[in-house]
Amino acid sequence: MEKGLFITFEGCDGCGKTTQLELLAKYLNTQGFSVITTREPGAKGLGVQLREILLNYDGEVSSNCESFLFLADRAQHIDTIVKPAIYQGKIVLCDRHIDSTAAYQGYGRGLDIDQINYLNNIATSGLKPNLTLLFDVDTETSMARVGKNKDRMESAGIEFQEKVRRGYLELAKAEPKRIRVFDSRKTIEQLHQEVLGTIAPLL
Amino acid sequence: MEKGLFITFEGCDGCGKTTQLELLAKYLNTQGFSVITTREPGAKGLGVQLREILLNYDGEVSSNCESFLFLADRAQHIDTIVKPAIYQGKIVLCDRHIDSTAAYQGYGRGLDIDQINYLNNIATSGLKPNLTLLFDVDTETSMARVGKNKDRMESAGIEFQEKVRRGYLELAKAEPKRIRVFDSRKTIEQLHQEVLGTIAPLL
Repeated sequence: MEKGLFITFEGCDGCGKTTQLELLAKYLNTQGFSVITTREPGAKGLGVQLREILLNYDGEVSSNCESFLFLADRAQHIDTIVKPAIYQGKIVLCDRHIDSTAAYQGYGRGLDIDQINYLNNIATSGLKPNLTLLFDVDTETSMARVGKNKDRMESAGIEFQEKVRRGYLELAKAEPKRIRVFDSRKTIEQLHQEVLGTIAPLL
Repeated sequence: MEKGLFITFEGCDGCGKTTQLELLAKYLNTQGFSVITTREPGAKGLGVQLREILLNYDGEVSSNCESFLFLADRAQHIDTIVKPAIYQGKIVLCDRHIDSTAAYQGYGRGLDIDQINYLNNIATSGLKPNLTLLFDVDTETSMARVGKNKDRMESAGIEFQEKVRRGYLELAKAEPKRIRVFDSRKTIEQLHQEVLGTIAPLL
């Protein structure tokens, strides 16, 4: 592997993506790969401050403002963390990335998808994930798993979550090679095995 | 006046724009107009937190991240402060706006100007200032006036400031009807009189 790999984990809250990311990281480490795990929004430093605003600001946040904050976090994350790691040959596992913006701000809040793609492209300087693992979960299960300690995004209601879920599935349909869909009703171990099978050709 | 007015004040640090903004606000108040004075970045609430990051964050901030943060602040400012005031028939005087992004991030840091225009257009939902007052100041005077207490933007050096100044003048050349240039070497009172002469036809 001359350069590293960039693998993103997507899905609604409560879909199990973070658990699968951690399991995959552990597996890759035992296989001797150099792995970093990271997330958007709010991986580190400035991003943490932005994540704090995005998830917990209790005043009005305009839709456009919200999108730009996610993009600011993404640009900082890609430029200062992801790209350097990939150039060092590492495998970067990232919890949420461009497809979250398309699903939540685009399909969820109704912002123009072409515009979001244009903006994502600026924020990432054109870098795309080698692979995206999408964990599809029905909205009821998602809401039940998240429970009562909801943040600002999670509190947006069932109808919004439904739109986001459908949005994710649309995205996967449009890019089936990059985005692979997993059924979150399966057990953690079943999903982990499926993930291993999916990434194996890339290693 | 059925709807309000949106007047922006632009120029390099130390050009005297804030002083002129305050003098104009005072004058308009004495004439019975309803005026609000505001600024970018960081007018209020969430914007103040973003301004804090933009001007004082002491780690690396990637160029794209910086642009998106300014845009996030702008979107929030336009949607929650400027537009409501204009719809109420107020005169909004704003210290820095879209042209600052074009001058600093575009001409100064070398980001693509068409892209910046596209992004500014999203952030403002297409709202443009009725008038922009640009206070042109030579770089030495600007640096001397700012003195030693520089923030992150002001510390970027003479060459950067020169590019920004030239950028502002290019912008004024491209939109001479909206952007009016004032020579900051004049006295505060001379400039104030010129400003009054310029805005008179709009009142």
